[in-house]
Amino acid sequence: MPARDTGPRARAEPLSGLDELAAALRALPGVGPKAAQRMALHLLQHDRPGAMRLSVALARATDSVHHCERCNTFTEDTLCTLCRSTKRDEALLCIVETPADLLMVEQTHAYDGLYFVLMGRLSPLDGIGPRDIALDRLLKRATDGRVREVVLATNFTHEGEATAHYIGELLANRGIRVSRLARGVPVGGELEYVDAGTLAQALRERRPVA
Amino acid sequence: MPARDTGPRARAEPLSGLDELAAALRALPGVGPKAAQRMALHLLQHDRPGAMRLSVALARATDSVHHCERCNTFTEDTLCTLCRSTKRDEALLCIVETPADLLMVEQTHAYDGLYFVLMGRLSPLDGIGPRDIALDRLLKRATDGRVREVVLATNFTHEGEATAHYIGELLANRGIRVSRLARGVPVGGELEYVDAGTLAQALRERRPVA
Repeated sequence: MPARDTGPRARAEPLSGLDELAAALRALPGVGPKAAQRMALHLLQHDRPGAMRLSVALARATDSVHHCERCNTFTEDTLCTLCRSTKRDEALLCIVETPADLLMVEQTHAYDGLYFVLMGRLSPLDGIGPRDIALDRLLKRATDGRVREVVLATNFTHEGEATAHYIGELLANRGIRVSRLARGVPVGGELEYVDAGTLAQALRERRPVA
Repeated sequence: MPARDTGPRARAEPLSGLDELAAALRALPGVGPKAAQRMALHLLQHDRPGAMRLSVALARATDSVHHCERCNTFTEDTLCTLCRSTKRDEALLCIVETPADLLMVEQTHAYDGLYFVLMGRLSPLDGIGPRDIALDRLLKRATDGRVREVVLATNFTHEGEATAHYIGELLANRGIRVSRLARGVPVGGELEYVDAGTLAQALRERRPVA
């Protein structure tokens, strides 16, 4: 392409502030160049107060949010609210991949133990090994003498299953009771629409009802 | 649902900095609560420098980007680069809905006139009338004595067409030559996959080739 500076036509507005904003929005996951430009124009045209709030929230979170020393989730204190609580069962430790997963388990209102957040999963293909997901800290945490059962609540993906298997072996060797979330037909699920793998698992792990 | 504060279990971490960030990300178009949480966790976990850059870019753009006095597009100066240029044809004025549309027309390298950006379109159903899209400024701009032809390049949607029609009437009444982008089969388009409306238009507006 010829250099356009020397041509007879002026170049389009560099729009530096706008371009810079669109480029910076690409840091968000799943946001490509077109979406970033649309977002930048939307904010400048329709929601400048929202843009300012987002700017402040980004600066504040980047500055103040770090990992809980005990469970590794995000918090603004040394220990997160759950780890500070005296009302949770210290004998139960649930292992999840991300803070979002922790919040999902909390929403069930069916668990009153504590957590450990891996902030990832084993994924050899992506170069993520045991050293990259805080496994040494988990091991120390799980063998503190108070934990009696570890509940593996990693995802039921290949990586999540491999992570659960690896951690399970590690902890079982140290005499800790390890369990895994049940697999089976989802609540409200119709057999016709459940995948064969799930149905096979539900059959193998069928439970007596009477 | 019972109030959980009084129950025997502690509540999940309020995560205020993180929650605030996720809430602020909702200002972006097309970002729901789940996507906002995913974005917030991604930034804090994997790209804090990116989050800081975004914070600064938002603050800077909100502060410095405003509308060009002449063509109404976004700029950081009084006049945008295109309006300041002496190399563009002042007799041609292309009317577009948004700065993104302006950039698309520029990318064609097929237009060397100037622009007017409506920053919207007529949309009675959304309560957007002629007063909301800077039509008075456009009228003043188009009748400054130098503009000889106005090219209507609003979208080929219902609103865009209605806007083009409205502006076309307005300007034609003042003796200005008005044209509209050609409609037809897209370059590379296959008749089999072109919608019937487009094909009908291409037939009605067929051009002699010899």
